[in-house]
Amino acid sequence: MTTAKHVALASRPKGWPTLDNFRYEDKDIPAAGAGEVALRTIWLSLDPYMRGRMNDAASYADPVPIGGTMEGGAISEVTASNNDGFAVGDIVVARTGWASHAISDGSDIRKVDPTIASLSAYLGVLGMPGMTAWIGLNEIGKMQAGETVLISAATGAVGGLAGQLAKAKGCKVIGVAGGAEKCAYAVAELGFDVCLDHKAAPDARALGKEIRGSKTTEAAIANMNMFGRIAICGMIAWYNGDNVADAQPLPAVWSAILVKRLRVQGFLFPDHQESAGAFFKEVAPLVASGQINFRETVTEGLENAPKAFLELLEGKNFGKQLVRVGDDP
Amino acid sequence: MTTAKHVALASRPKGWPTLDNFRYEDKDIPAAGAGEVALRTIWLSLDPYMRGRMNDAASYADPVPIGGTMEGGAISEVTASNNDGFAVGDIVVARTGWASHAISDGSDIRKVDPTIASLSAYLGVLGMPGMTAWIGLNEIGKMQAGETVLISAATGAVGGLAGQLAKAKGCKVIGVAGGAEKCAYAVAELGFDVCLDHKAAPDARALGKEIRGSKTTEAAIANMNMFGRIAICGMIAWYNGDNVADAQPLPAVWSAILVKRLRVQGFLFPDHQESAGAFFKEVAPLVASGQINFRETVTEGLENAPKAFLELLEGKNFGKQLVRVGDDP
Repeated sequence: MTTAKHVALASRPKGWPTLDNFRYEDKDIPAAGAGEVALRTIWLSLDPYMRGRMNDAASYADPVPIGGTMEGGAISEVTASNNDGFAVGDIVVARTGWASHAISDGSDIRKVDPTIASLSAYLGVLGMPGMTAWIGLNEIGKMQAGETVLISAATGAVGGLAGQLAKAKGCKVIGVAGGAEKCAYAVAELGFDVCLDHKAAPDARALGKEIRGSKTTEAAIANMNMFGRIAICGMIAWYNGDNVADAQPLPAVWSAILVKRLRVQGFLFPDHQESAGAFFKEVAPLVASGQINFRETVTEGLENAPKAFLELLEGKNFGKQLVRVGDDP
Repeated sequence: MTTAKHVALASRPKGWPTLDNFRYEDKDIPAAGAGEVALRTIWLSLDPYMRGRMNDAASYADPVPIGGTMEGGAISEVTASNNDGFAVGDIVVARTGWASHAISDGSDIRKVDPTIASLSAYLGVLGMPGMTAWIGLNEIGKMQAGETVLISAATGAVGGLAGQLAKAKGCKVIGVAGGAEKCAYAVAELGFDVCLDHKAAPDARALGKEIRGSKTTEAAIANMNMFGRIAICGMIAWYNGDNVADAQPLPAVWSAILVKRLRVQGFLFPDHQESAGAFFKEVAPLVASGQINFRETVTEGLENAPKAFLELLEGKNFGKQLVRVGDDP
């Protein structure tokens, strides 16, 4: 047994957390057992998602129990090893939480190469936030050269890399950040084309945010281009609602989209003409053989089309609404 | 010149349309010119999207002008042809609107095979609504056997086919429809596993629709499974707002998703571990060479992690927030 320091969750916050919700204290940890390594924390990463772990609510991960060590990623040095995969002195990325020392069985740690970048970079630009930026742009957003990319929290760990990757791809990049200093940095040092300060009313107005205050997502929705994609990896502005699911309607929707990893997609028939062949191949035989059941509501005479249309809007039709205009051939 | 009958848009509706918004009248049409065919309408399709065309508002298609023929799909017979692609007596799908006769240059008509199904089926189950169902399930929703599929307007031209295709694929299919008769039909004849009557409070409650009334989309969002997909091809319940974009916030969002064909997707880093290789290959060299700019906010000492975390939630950090817990190796 050795004594480590850790930060425990002392109580669950209501709304914004306070220092009282945390407790910095000693914690006994065992020596490294068979197959295990002992770790000394060098860097701890702090990330917005940790707020969600403080709630006793179903989310995409279990909550931190009261008295438990706050969760989090870390860069650590291996100080003892009974695991063939790791040697004393190795530097690893770990998920050992807000603690000075920890034990790992090796399954949740990964060696990093200190010659490529600073150790701390493996918690940011080369770590979870950086990879989130890359995934959001490429795998979720399918970013294409020439498109316009809007990035909220533009100077944060995720947004800062996202903007630079989008510029490198040949996109126009608009950032949203809080404060003139962050906006100036986004443009001057990160290379964003524009950065809007959401704390400054005139700039925020430039985003066309007439809809309900100045929330970036709502303003973005109102200004999206056709066939745009919205990749949602977080929503820090909403994390301190007492209970996000019971808050305003819009956040409840976005919260579900994020936490459940939903995909919501609008589509219209005229954009998918190329599917006609596959559709007919599959469905026409089913219709011809009678396997597909369908109903029609027939209104006689073109002069009655307006009345039939009003009834369609009221749901009075049953199945497909048709108007017989002329006789069969 | 011959005289046809048509239904013109007489005036634009405010909210629900009325018969006064339409005018049934004579319309002169020319004889078929070079390359053209003359068409006699047999069936006219009525579809919810037509309500949008009555508004003088930017949408995915131009509005019908005042006095113009209402738009729509039709099944027609070729009665005269100066086009090598079509012979007198051919039956075609056309987009000639609410009219008894029309002229086409052949570019917007397609011959149908009357031996496969009734002519009217080409406006429904084998037409635009049917293809919308197929696209929504397969191309947008990526339906997989064993999944649960919720279908609103379950007995409509789109929903009725969608439910049957989903059952055939091996999905559990839940419908939502208005009225007991429609729900009974969905289960007994279309093979839905369940159909909820949105006009009956107890059944609607079964969908868990505590959020703001009984709108299906909101109830569905609250009950979605992880990694679910929502394919939005219309929203008939909202078409008669005076101005959809200015109505309640939720419809404004859904309206934009539909009309702009947006894709909104939540994602979380832990689901994308397989991307680590591609990410490092692209980004690590950029970081190593200094081409990627990034900033860190460093707080000293694990005991100060709670304070640093509160500041992160307030946006006081600049770039990646880190806590130095131990000395460099």
